[in-house]
Amino acid sequence: MRMFDIIKKKRDGGELSTEEIKFFIDGVTNGTIPDYQTSALCMAIYFRGMSVRETCDLTFAVRDSGDRLNFSAIDGIRVDKHSTGGVGDKTSLVVAPIVASFGVKVAKMSGRGLGHTGGTIDKLEAIEGFNTTLSDADFIKQVNDIGFAIVGQSRQFAPADKKLYALRDVTATVDSMPLIAASIMGKKLAADDDCIVLDVKTGSGSFMKSIEDSKKLARLMVDIGKNAGKKIVALITNMDRPLGYAIGNSLEVIEAVETLNGRGPEDFTEVCLTLAGYMLSLAGKGSVDECREMAKGAISDGSALAKFRQTVAAQGGNAALIDNPAKFAKAKYSHVVKSATRGYICKVDTEAYGLASLALGAGRNTMEDKIDYSAGIILKRKTGDFVDAGEEIATLYANDKTKFAAAEKLLLAATQLQEKKPQNEPLVYCTVE
Amino acid sequence: MRMFDIIKKKRDGGELSTEEIKFFIDGVTNGTIPDYQTSALCMAIYFRGMSVRETCDLTFAVRDSGDRLNFSAIDGIRVDKHSTGGVGDKTSLVVAPIVASFGVKVAKMSGRGLGHTGGTIDKLEAIEGFNTTLSDADFIKQVNDIGFAIVGQSRQFAPADKKLYALRDVTATVDSMPLIAASIMGKKLAADDDCIVLDVKTGSGSFMKSIEDSKKLARLMVDIGKNAGKKIVALITNMDRPLGYAIGNSLEVIEAVETLNGRGPEDFTEVCLTLAGYMLSLAGKGSVDECREMAKGAISDGSALAKFRQTVAAQGGNAALIDNPAKFAKAKYSHVVKSATRGYICKVDTEAYGLASLALGAGRNTMEDKIDYSAGIILKRKTGDFVDAGEEIATLYANDKTKFAAAEKLLLAATQLQEKKPQNEPLVYCTVE
Repeated sequence: MRMFDIIKKKRDGGELSTEEIKFFIDGVTNGTIPDYQTSALCMAIYFRGMSVRETCDLTFAVRDSGDRLNFSAIDGIRVDKHSTGGVGDKTSLVVAPIVASFGVKVAKMSGRGLGHTGGTIDKLEAIEGFNTTLSDADFIKQVNDIGFAIVGQSRQFAPADKKLYALRDVTATVDSMPLIAASIMGKKLAADDDCIVLDVKTGSGSFMKSIEDSKKLARLMVDIGKNAGKKIVALITNMDRPLGYAIGNSLEVIEAVETLNGRGPEDFTEVCLTLAGYMLSLAGKGSVDECREMAKGAISDGSALAKFRQTVAAQGGNAALIDNPAKFAKAKYSHVVKSATRGYICKVDTEAYGLASLALGAGRNTMEDKIDYSAGIILKRKTGDFVDAGEEIATLYANDKTKFAAAEKLLLAATQLQEKKPQNEPLVYCTVE
Repeated sequence: MRMFDIIKKKRDGGELSTEEIKFFIDGVTNGTIPDYQTSALCMAIYFRGMSVRETCDLTFAVRDSGDRLNFSAIDGIRVDKHSTGGVGDKTSLVVAPIVASFGVKVAKMSGRGLGHTGGTIDKLEAIEGFNTTLSDADFIKQVNDIGFAIVGQSRQFAPADKKLYALRDVTATVDSMPLIAASIMGKKLAADDDCIVLDVKTGSGSFMKSIEDSKKLARLMVDIGKNAGKKIVALITNMDRPLGYAIGNSLEVIEAVETLNGRGPEDFTEVCLTLAGYMLSLAGKGSVDECREMAKGAISDGSALAKFRQTVAAQGGNAALIDNPAKFAKAKYSHVVKSATRGYICKVDTEAYGLASLALGAGRNTMEDKIDYSAGIILKRKTGDFVDAGEEIATLYANDKTKFAAAEKLLLAATQLQEKKPQNEPLVYCTVE
């Protein structure tokens, strides 16, 4: 088999065989295929696409390129939620405890943030003492004991994806539906869950800018999951606005705790309940509607918050912070961003909000950057809200005053006003099963 | 400027600016752009194409990536012919002496053969003593003295093309019209001719398999040439059959000498007269028809042969071989290939004929291979001819008997017979000016 023939076949619109795809991914993993052939094939895939069969084969080859987890020692149904990455997305911190409070197992592996998107592991590490590195045995024991454990991706999961992504990132071949699907699902399937709820973010702060594209990506990922024997469903959710009001690590943990206390922002609570409803339903706890009510109940009766507190404590985190979020370390400086004009906020560039938070020190430009956990943004007005000239849109937090100027500029430029009150956009566009 | 943005722009169907194309080719030349980005861009160009303006810029950047010749010391009009490469194509050996015999200057730089196509320099080196390496001063002096000199490409012409081609060759991005045009013309324009006649070969033995594609490529190259201030015309010629009856280096020189003696094969003579007619006409010697008659005259009065002999002698070649081609060293062995069935030859895979000659030792698989100058093929029957079962189609020549089996198989498989006499295909399809 020759890589040249594989590139040419795809270039000419052919369908690659399972063996050809395996040959390609094996070669990427062990370095026998030069980068210039890999990038040429990625570009050909960008233009020619891949069938569902090819995409499944690609996903499974990526999954099999490294370690795979074995969760057979975990008792009960294992369910996971995966978000394609957004701004202000702290849903895992809320939905995992809700689901675990019903005895469904959440053995969660999460990533770190990069660029304008945050990462769940970073948010948890904003909790003093929280340990995101557990041995396999401790991880499985904690899941069995309290239903929920969460660690960073320390293992060699899907190394082919790491190499492929690095190359796609510098050759303008990231925005390819089959390549995105294989990247996300290849890593996800290396874990050993029974059920998966995919949260496919749509809009300015996400991979997919249009609902149509999001649906296509969701369809593809759900098909891949089913082919791998998973119970799986995807929700297409709105990323044209940040979720909740907090962006930044400890600020988001505080908002998550508020939400578990039943005092969370309406939009964020809504999305969490929907996701938790689907997770519980896939795990066999009832219809989606029934499960959604159960999720509501877990918030109102405090069982979800208790589960989160238990998890934080089990992983060495300072549970007093959960009991009283006011104790979280605060940024030294704050700065109020005011609107220059009046009107209704009609459109928001969520990605720019993420970049503003990054500029304040809350994120990373490269994986080597250090995060400032207390930095970030608290929004006062969101899409649909009226704001007067001189009125506050948001407060910025940072430990370095000089960072406010750039963040303020980004935030203001990213916030469009109009005279008329805009129509409400849905939070969840649709479901793909 | 970032290569990423250039790739993305082309991927999305944009038109690259002159500066962007220069940045790309400069980066390829000095090695600052990694191969994986270059191959990704080539694949994007394969799918998106390039405008004439972009292709001109690409060509000029390739031309300017290395040395350029200065022929200002040559007196008179300088004209060149460039073939896109074929099988049994020894036209340069005939047309250059014809043209030079009228005082038009031919300062020729030629290439070596690779794969199924031969190279003029290899053919000339089949003449004992022929020196294809001259100093610039000697080269220009010889052109001024006798009108014709020919050397191999020893200089650093268009190094960007060399790198680009090597990469395209292994990433399935060779068959792209703008990349082919820029590669051919980038090298050609590094020379300093006034007039160029392009011989765009069409059919199985060439880059372009269809007449339509050949016309497009010819149009593009002619436009590039005009943009560079050249007088230029392209002929679309038939490569669905080898030119003449001889394939292999000394065998082709012998056929060229026969042609200069007025005893050449009809098809080959015809193509030579047409090319020489256009070359003379571009050089201002009259209409194409008039110049074609002049070319005929140069053969019949012996002046073209005399010019060839003079050139061979000037470059150290054994002119006695030109006077009596029977003195050329012969291959030790010959083998007659007979037809198994009867019928008219209706179709020939010219590329396979070239590969058969390569298998006999007449060509190179890699640039390091040694050529066997006496090896090759003399065809007895060509497209349109009738052949009886058991009758000779061709004779193979080699210095190693074991090479006949593979070459015979290739030749027979590449020769299709049918009952009905096929229609005559034209030798020259059309002209693009």
